[in-house]
Amino acid sequence: MNVMITGGAGFLGLRLARALLRDGLDGRPVGRLILVDRTAPRDLIDGRVCAMVGDIADHAFVASLPVAECEVLYHLAAVVSGEAEDNFDLGMRVNVDAARLLLECARASGHRPRLVFTSSVAVFGPLAAGEEIDDRTAVSPRSSYGTEKAIAELLLQDYARRDFIDGVVLRLPTISVRPGRPNQAASSFASGIVREPLAGIEARCPVPAATRLWLLSPRRATEALMLAVELPSAKRAEGRILNLPGISVTAGEMVETLAAIAGRAALDRVRWEPDPAIERIVASWPPRWDDSRARALGFRGDSDFAAIVRAYIEDDMQATTPLDA
Amino acid sequence: MNVMITGGAGFLGLRLARALLRDGLDGRPVGRLILVDRTAPRDLIDGRVCAMVGDIADHAFVASLPVAECEVLYHLAAVVSGEAEDNFDLGMRVNVDAARLLLECARASGHRPRLVFTSSVAVFGPLAAGEEIDDRTAVSPRSSYGTEKAIAELLLQDYARRDFIDGVVLRLPTISVRPGRPNQAASSFASGIVREPLAGIEARCPVPAATRLWLLSPRRATEALMLAVELPSAKRAEGRILNLPGISVTAGEMVETLAAIAGRAALDRVRWEPDPAIERIVASWPPRWDDSRARALGFRGDSDFAAIVRAYIEDDMQATTPLDA
Repeated sequence: MNVMITGGAGFLGLRLARALLRDGLDGRPVGRLILVDRTAPRDLIDGRVCAMVGDIADHAFVASLPVAECEVLYHLAAVVSGEAEDNFDLGMRVNVDAARLLLECARASGHRPRLVFTSSVAVFGPLAAGEEIDDRTAVSPRSSYGTEKAIAELLLQDYARRDFIDGVVLRLPTISVRPGRPNQAASSFASGIVREPLAGIEARCPVPAATRLWLLSPRRATEALMLAVELPSAKRAEGRILNLPGISVTAGEMVETLAAIAGRAALDRVRWEPDPAIERIVASWPPRWDDSRARALGFRGDSDFAAIVRAYIEDDMQATTPLDA
Repeated sequence: MNVMITGGAGFLGLRLARALLRDGLDGRPVGRLILVDRTAPRDLIDGRVCAMVGDIADHAFVASLPVAECEVLYHLAAVVSGEAEDNFDLGMRVNVDAARLLLECARASGHRPRLVFTSSVAVFGPLAAGEEIDDRTAVSPRSSYGTEKAIAELLLQDYARRDFIDGVVLRLPTISVRPGRPNQAASSFASGIVREPLAGIEARCPVPAATRLWLLSPRRATEALMLAVELPSAKRAEGRILNLPGISVTAGEMVETLAAIAGRAALDRVRWEPDPAIERIVASWPPRWDDSRARALGFRGDSDFAAIVRAYIEDDMQATTPLDA
């Protein structure tokens, strides 16, 4: 089958691409894999891969994508939270307009493709005391990023209700540990405080140690993206927004876990330096949610943060920096 | 002060216009009143009124509106529920794109105008047993109209959070009794089954007599539009979506109430003729919601359906068809 991934040169897109090329999808091999992004992915050499480089919010570019030839579309392209807050127009353009353009192309294809959007904890605001987020909790974004994701969720649901597509939204916990360099996501530190100390460099943590995060590893996120497509269509129709499983950990616990695995020296490489702007955004995200529906459908979270750190070392560090180097 | 009303030639827009010209707003007289619609309002002769005729989803037209000169903007223009379901593209264009264009113009004005959007019961889907809608209940639209209104709600909230505007969304119950002719709203019958029998003509009721509706009179809706602007800014900021007060009445009770006021002959003028498409949409709307926050702020509902019928006879029938004629 042919598959398209927008944001296909991003870290999650590339990881998904590699998994699809290796394992296929829904029991079938991948024929053509279209990776759409602002740049072509590097280091992905495979005759089935076609990189299409352009602006995902540009109407003519999106109209040129071979959407009609793809059974499955992953829309991962996004402007991250910090950047969407700093540049409102850019965030609206990519996080709302591009999603709508893609939905329109999928609708025009006439063959009701399976379409997966990623959304975020950021659609929620702070919880009242004792409140837990479940499928009936109202979104209450406190950032433009969260607003834009919530709008894309509504669009996908209505396009699916009208049978234009067979879609599902995966609300992702904060992804940790993300390889590579810091980005403009307000949650960038949630990877940096592990990744940088492991690489022997200093990381800055802009939130207090008691700040609680809801986390998922890239490994589990990739599995979830594949399972979302493999579910029977009727299961997706039962509720097209899925709050993915996560684990609830504080920033302090994350650093302590790292120290237990990589040695106490890691502690000295984390500089606690509050940034009120980031703190405000992160504090508005829920520290957990009810993930029972996703779990019942077979989606898996990580067992604990130590498992997340070990998976990062296995999956990402050994590829670039052998541990024994 | 200068005020703009989109949908200003519609029944609620015109009613609001007349009230503003008569009573002023927020303790001040209205200077200029800009009525924006596809047609110019008839029968509204007042030197302060300026009708601007055009397509509210057309970028150039909206950019030409004197938004910067208005302290208060009412955005009432909408494609109604039945039409938005039949014509998806038109609904998106007017109910989403026009709202966004207007928000952008308000933002560009730089003076943070007060901006009122109307939304609807249609943002909600069917309730679970025992569930009640309050401010924390997730929207769950089962129609494109509801989806579009929910998107506009999210946009307004983020524009307000960013201090581009000082906005509020009024979620309206079904408005009854609406004067004039039937329209393409799925709820059109909720006025027709009173209005038509009173005018001596037959009305068709497309839902069973047991169907429960959440109703508000035009009189109370107009009051609410004015109060929404008159609230202190800090009150709007406490929660920018308000579930307006309503009364919960079945279609059968509505007709019985009419008969008690206007005579049993009215009963014979209602033809019960189910329409599954309309039934499906109407049945997906909640029959009530928690309106305590709006009531605490001073918004009022109707005492009972008899009061609504009497208000219609006073406000609308006497103007066009004297009762003693």
